[in-house]
Amino acid sequence: MDNTDTPPTGSGEAPGAIVLHQVGIIRNGVERPFLSAGDDGIELRGEMDAVKDEIRQSRDAVSEIVIDEKIVEILDGIEEYSHIVVLYWAHRVPESSRALTRVHPMGRAKIPSVGIFSTCSPARPNPVLTSLVRLHEKRGNILRVSGLDAIDGSPVIDIKPFVKEFYDKKDVRIPAWMRKICDEMGDYYE
Amino acid sequence: MDNTDTPPTGSGEAPGAIVLHQVGIIRNGVERPFLSAGDDGIELRGEMDAVKDEIRQSRDAVSEIVIDEKIVEILDGIEEYSHIVVLYWAHRVPESSRALTRVHPMGRAKIPSVGIFSTCSPARPNPVLTSLVRLHEKRGNILRVSGLDAIDGSPVIDIKPFVKEFYDKKDVRIPAWMRKICDEMGDYYE
Repeated sequence: MDNTDTPPTGSGEAPGAIVLHQVGIIRNGVERPFLSAGDDGIELRGEMDAVKDEIRQSRDAVSEIVIDEKIVEILDGIEEYSHIVVLYWAHRVPESSRALTRVHPMGRAKIPSVGIFSTCSPARPNPVLTSLVRLHEKRGNILRVSGLDAIDGSPVIDIKPFVKEFYDKKDVRIPAWMRKICDEMGDYYE
Repeated sequence: MDNTDTPPTGSGEAPGAIVLHQVGIIRNGVERPFLSAGDDGIELRGEMDAVKDEIRQSRDAVSEIVIDEKIVEILDGIEEYSHIVVLYWAHRVPESSRALTRVHPMGRAKIPSVGIFSTCSPARPNPVLTSLVRLHEKRGNILRVSGLDAIDGSPVIDIKPFVKEFYDKKDVRIPAWMRKICDEMGDYYE
């Protein structure tokens, strides 16, 4: 692949390496993700019906996003948004899972495997996960949010404002298997 | 900041370093971004009225996302989505811009500066940018998309499916300055 116009970023790193700086950490006491990534794919914790209820309950659970105090100014004005998009690093995904290319969606063997870029699998070449959350309160360097599906201790990479107009696309088409998962989740995403 | 439960990722890197692997590259012939990041903030290329028209025209321009052939399987099934979210690295953002905490939105001096996490500025601690695009065609390891606001040569980090239900939030609130920018852009995002 032509990589000649990708200069190195960071300092003292190998040419072409892209190095992220952790800007904060997620605190919510959640020890285990619903979907975990292993060497040979992803796995759903328990049966779908049981986990579904748990996932739905988690929607209202509060997480704290603790931003590095040295850059607290970076949050100025964020309290004017009702929702934000959090980018975090799935730090428990083993390095070996980053080499996977196909998985069964949601770890469900009954759904035929597809390419990882067609899924929300945490096992991906760069496990930078995104989560759209409701922002309840900003207190100093701490944001209190709900709907964040990360586990405790996840490094925060970035926060972006949520502007609904950006996502209001027409004629959106998704695969039948993804439609089925959405239907099972019902009003979870509202 | 408590960083003790953030194990190193990658191998041979400094403890706690998060290293991304480039999985592809964006090809679209676009040399300069509309918004560029310098040492002291971000700058809009030209006057808003002129640039606005150019930005609107760019909506229909086609970009190619060229994925590393060695992992082409990772795209299997992606053609069943009409829209995808592309995560890419803003490789032209100077390292010094990653230390900024506040900017004038869209580089416009008339809008009071705010914290960078309240903006879509490319100058941010980790310039991993996201763009929701329409997927027109998959041909081998190449995706043809429109609406991708990246410049030529940007490293691709990740691709995620776009499922509209995930973003269909109620009671979404944004700051007045962001509302004004959205209104100026009119139907750009449709």
